[in-house]
Amino acid sequence: MKATVFHAPGDVRVEQVPDPSVKEPTDAVVRITHACICGSDLWFYRGLTPFEPGWRLGHEWMGIVEEVGPGVRTVKKGDRVIAPFAFSDGECEFCRRGLQTSCAHGGFWGTMNDGGQGEAVRAPYADANLVALPPSIENDADLLKAILPLTDVMGTGHHAAVCAGVSKGATVAVVGDGAVGLCGVLAARRLGAERIIVMGHRAGRMDLAKRLGATDLVMSSGEQAVAEVLEMTKGGAQAVLECVGTSEALNSAIGICRPGQRVGFVGVPHHSAAMDFRRMFYHNIGLQGGVAPVRAYIAELLPDVLSGRLDPSPVLDLTVELPGVPEGYRAMDAREAIKAMVKV
Amino acid sequence: MKATVFHAPGDVRVEQVPDPSVKEPTDAVVRITHACICGSDLWFYRGLTPFEPGWRLGHEWMGIVEEVGPGVRTVKKGDRVIAPFAFSDGECEFCRRGLQTSCAHGGFWGTMNDGGQGEAVRAPYADANLVALPPSIENDADLLKAILPLTDVMGTGHHAAVCAGVSKGATVAVVGDGAVGLCGVLAARRLGAERIIVMGHRAGRMDLAKRLGATDLVMSSGEQAVAEVLEMTKGGAQAVLECVGTSEALNSAIGICRPGQRVGFVGVPHHSAAMDFRRMFYHNIGLQGGVAPVRAYIAELLPDVLSGRLDPSPVLDLTVELPGVPEGYRAMDAREAIKAMVKV
Repeated sequence: MKATVFHAPGDVRVEQVPDPSVKEPTDAVVRITHACICGSDLWFYRGLTPFEPGWRLGHEWMGIVEEVGPGVRTVKKGDRVIAPFAFSDGECEFCRRGLQTSCAHGGFWGTMNDGGQGEAVRAPYADANLVALPPSIENDADLLKAILPLTDVMGTGHHAAVCAGVSKGATVAVVGDGAVGLCGVLAARRLGAERIIVMGHRAGRMDLAKRLGATDLVMSSGEQAVAEVLEMTKGGAQAVLECVGTSEALNSAIGICRPGQRVGFVGVPHHSAAMDFRRMFYHNIGLQGGVAPVRAYIAELLPDVLSGRLDPSPVLDLTVELPGVPEGYRAMDAREAIKAMVKV
Repeated sequence: MKATVFHAPGDVRVEQVPDPSVKEPTDAVVRITHACICGSDLWFYRGLTPFEPGWRLGHEWMGIVEEVGPGVRTVKKGDRVIAPFAFSDGECEFCRRGLQTSCAHGGFWGTMNDGGQGEAVRAPYADANLVALPPSIENDADLLKAILPLTDVMGTGHHAAVCAGVSKGATVAVVGDGAVGLCGVLAARRLGAERIIVMGHRAGRMDLAKRLGATDLVMSSGEQAVAEVLEMTKGGAQAVLECVGTSEALNSAIGICRPGQRVGFVGVPHHSAAMDFRRMFYHNIGLQGGVAPVRAYIAELLPDVLSGRLDPSPVLDLTVELPGVPEGYRAMDAREAIKAMVKV
């Protein structure tokens, strides 16, 4: 089959790889129909995180079950399924607590496993990870596109909102105008936030933030941006979603958080975080978050997507086919696209 | 009157200062009977934080109301009162939410105000800050000594436990064997922890930790200590209390925290916190805490002290009189005493 393989920073290629097959009784093989390129994929694409030539790419995907092992009970051949970006065994202490990302037997798609930016994947622990969609939506391309972000960015934005403690009527700030930040806006609105302030820099994305529910846009940077949010909130937001993953973004998030409240952080940290710990201390600002247990959130969010109450599809502003994956990376790296959908 | 005044690192003196008086209608003047020297006082004593010559010392105290302004309603002349280490107006948004340490009109005793290591203090917002004790305990010296830590270290240890999310039956780890760490042990036990692991270095304090409720003592350092706690808990404690305030202690606390759980931090940060942010991220370990709103906790903890169910007095292992305050600092700096009580 064809799949996307990492060669070097800036060099990803769609090439022939071995076909996946059922190896364990709990495996399934899924033929991919849709995948995404993630903002977090840009870290290795830019050479900012260590990555090995030969590793596979793509952790967000949807497809049709092609084959299941004898131990698989909840999905069958022909089912359309989605999977969270991290797989897990579904049985350990952490899986039972809904923190599947800390599963002792879990891992991420891609790297040394099959990746979603390809024609098929072997999916371990199929019962734990594959969520079947209703057959009735099979021909609704728009709805399938709206469901796809539940594999990562929508669940991640929701995690930021949950960790930040967004509540009904709250004033919320979102740091970052990428796909996760935009999904954070949707999540905050869904949880009842009354005012949603977004800090970002790119006009097109900020316009989209407004369409998705943002009430206030702050486009300045650093201390100026912090000062503006403190002024407009009279002392800080009641919940702050950090959706970037840099030291500057984290410190801005702490800086605009109201005393006694929390920053929900989901930006993948690429820094040793010399953070504003004194402000956290003197104002009891909490920090809660991390890699999102998206599997746990699919059950909560999917019904809202199916019913049309939640639609994260606008974050997918570029569509490529499988041979176009390298172009998708290039466009996202150049900030020409927020997030690319891959139609396989 | 006499009061303790900072001159230079290592040089604190008890000397003549102006008598306090009621200046605002909401003030009271309180004659001090008991005070403490705090582990946090050692930071300026050691020259590690900026401090101005002439500033007063002592933020933990108890005494008898001598005079009240015309606006004071809840305490009267002759009442024995305690006060939290930070004063507040009792009326602002943060005071109403129980986060009196973020009060816009609040401050700390000592520095530019009267301090507790002296004969008397002017207490602003007396209704908000002074808590009257029952007259019946006036002659119970042991009970008064047990109440005194509610002004800071007992409330601070409790804050760490609350922020860490200690629950009934939990396995809890406490980083630090100082007065706050020891109070953290008491707080964790009081909240129902089943197993309480203490990380510390000094045998006498660790013995005391055991008397106060610790079930396991870890006396090694750094990575070795982290490995021991991870082994004995099979993957980390369900709640971790960080009661030191150094980068090493904070990273140990993050290192021994179970995925999905929280570190409650109350050690005053004297570091820019190059913290183990990646472990926090990949295992959803939260960080919650800061300067403790002790005022909010007095109502909860005082009844337990009055009834004898909670007794933090063993952390006060040295008693000096007012002229002996400099000796108290010296003894604590030399680690000869955990915490000194000052009888005025």
